[in-house]
Amino acid sequence: MRISELSTASGVPVATIKYYLREKLLPEGERSSPTQASYGTAHVQRLGVIRALVDAGVGIAGVRKVVGVLEEPPENPYDLLGAANAAVTPVIAGEPDLTEATALLERMGGAPEKCFPDQLAAVAHALATLERAGFTVPEPVMAAYLEHLSAIADAELAATPATSIEDAVRYVVLGTTLVEPLILALRRVAEQVAASRRFGTG
Amino acid sequence: MRISELSTASGVPVATIKYYLREKLLPEGERSSPTQASYGTAHVQRLGVIRALVDAGVGIAGVRKVVGVLEEPPENPYDLLGAANAAVTPVIAGEPDLTEATALLERMGGAPEKCFPDQLAAVAHALATLERAGFTVPEPVMAAYLEHLSAIADAELAATPATSIEDAVRYVVLGTTLVEPLILALRRVAEQVAASRRFGTG
Repeated sequence: MRISELSTASGVPVATIKYYLREKLLPEGERSSPTQASYGTAHVQRLGVIRALVDAGVGIAGVRKVVGVLEEPPENPYDLLGAANAAVTPVIAGEPDLTEATALLERMGGAPEKCFPDQLAAVAHALATLERAGFTVPEPVMAAYLEHLSAIADAELAATPATSIEDAVRYVVLGTTLVEPLILALRRVAEQVAASRRFGTG
Repeated sequence: MRISELSTASGVPVATIKYYLREKLLPEGERSSPTQASYGTAHVQRLGVIRALVDAGVGIAGVRKVVGVLEEPPENPYDLLGAANAAVTPVIAGEPDLTEATALLERMGGAPEKCFPDQLAAVAHALATLERAGFTVPEPVMAAYLEHLSAIADAELAATPATSIEDAVRYVVLGTTLVEPLILALRRVAEQVAASRRFGTG
């Protein structure tokens, strides 16, 4: 299909498609003439992934990392998942103290050497923000986070598609980033339901 | 204490404190002379809450709503929690289709009339973003979200402090907003641990 048809099929304006082509986020189409290129369903799919990441607030640098993983996927599934996850993990500036974050990782049954430093740094950063606000997560609540987030992660991992590398990366990257707003929104609804169960509805 | 001492105690610059005073996010100090006011620990605490919310990305309008809940707390605990939660829930533009979000609420044991529309709209918005990206949450994974987020909400509610209204509101507001980055960061670590358990470490 032509670029105008790709625009219609993907819902992405032609100018934006050209920007993604220049940024090498989208592979070139097949040249059908010196002034025309032809695009396929792979381009529509790639545009869907890019738009989804941009909508989820991932910057162009993060999108480029994800595209890199999609184009040169590691062979080992563990490395693949880690690379995809790391590509969309924001980098925390500075060198945070990882002691408490490491302790939480170990309580989930993990080992520091099997975890990306950026991921532990994100936990440390979140803990530091809470501390600055003088907010302590009560221990039974922290225990609930660790237990139930582990259970959620197990369910997510068990559902990773084995159909192709592209499918697996797409699932991990989108499942990690795009599902975050859903998880947070569901948590707030769950809190409302729990409050209603606990206190009645006034 | 004087405003300069309040600045030292809270770590917030004097100019910013004056801005919060003008915006009525911080109550006036007690006038000790026509040109001087005296501040107390309540001001330090309030500044801690404001900074925490601002750091968590809550805008001034959201901070104002939270301050409103803190200053005129509803009597019923359910209304109190709902108001605090709603104050920090971003408003989604437009009128999203709430059918699927309502079905998820009901699966968690809730009823639509006991849930704030903004909270359901946030779920609907997250679902729409996933759909636009062509990403479907596998049913066993969605079931895990509902089950384990309900368990997390129950643990959070059970730990709501009963010491004072201020403590309860502070806990709900900060526990809802500030804990979100921690939950997302822990989920990514949990995914890494689950991947390592499932696939080995390459």
